Amino acid sequence: MLEKTTRINFLFDFYQALLTPKQRNYMEMYYLEDYSLGEISESHNVSRQAIYDNIRRTEAMIEAYEEKLQLYSKFLKRKTLLEEMEQALTNQDVEHIKQLVDVLKELD
Amino acid sequence: MLEKTTRINFLFDFYQALLTPKQRNYMEMYYLEDYSLGEISESHNVSRQAIYDNIRRTEAMIEAYEEKLQLYSKFLKRKTLLEEMEQALTNQDVEHIKQLVDVLKELD
Repeated sequence: MLEKTTRINFLFDFYQALLTPKQRNYMEMYYLEDYSLGEISESHNVSRQAIYDNIRRTEAMIEAYEEKLQLYSKFLKRKTLLEEMEQALTNQDVEHIKQLVDVLKELD
Repeated sequence: MLEKTTRINFLFDFYQALLTPKQRNYMEMYYLEDYSLGEISESHNVSRQAIYDNIRRTEAMIEAYEEKLQLYSKFLKRKTLLEEMEQALTNQDVEHIKQLVDVLKELD
């Protein structure tokens, strides 16, 4: 569950600009501010089921965006390469840094 | 005009996964394969005006995606930083490379 939450948090971060204000609001309350479905339901005067459905649909939507654009997966690849680069810098391994720059250039 | 074409080509590259097959097809023919509106119109048996409208709408759509997600603008920033890094590698300027790695890590 924690792993799923982390993933959804990242996906939300990458794709929130493509969501409606309502979708963004429910996702923020549920995932970032840790409100329960019941609490969101009360504060918006909307049924718990409607909140639940909206959040599930939004999750499916940002997973579909990720399947198409892969922003999160590319972010993770870049992150790994940059960490590898920091290690290569510590080791003063200039050849390895050059290789990593080439891989990063190809990634977009 | 050339500048606009280059920009649209890049935006198309970044956002084509979000377009319909028809939108993708018209954009590919017009921008990548350099067919005229008249030629696309003939080959699809659709009016020239309909092709024109579809392409203009698609351009507006990928510009709107860019405004929200900024994939092209981030790509250009990363490209500049990686070129700066190659220069720093040539100069064996390890401190500068470290700074550039930090900037790249913050960019996503």
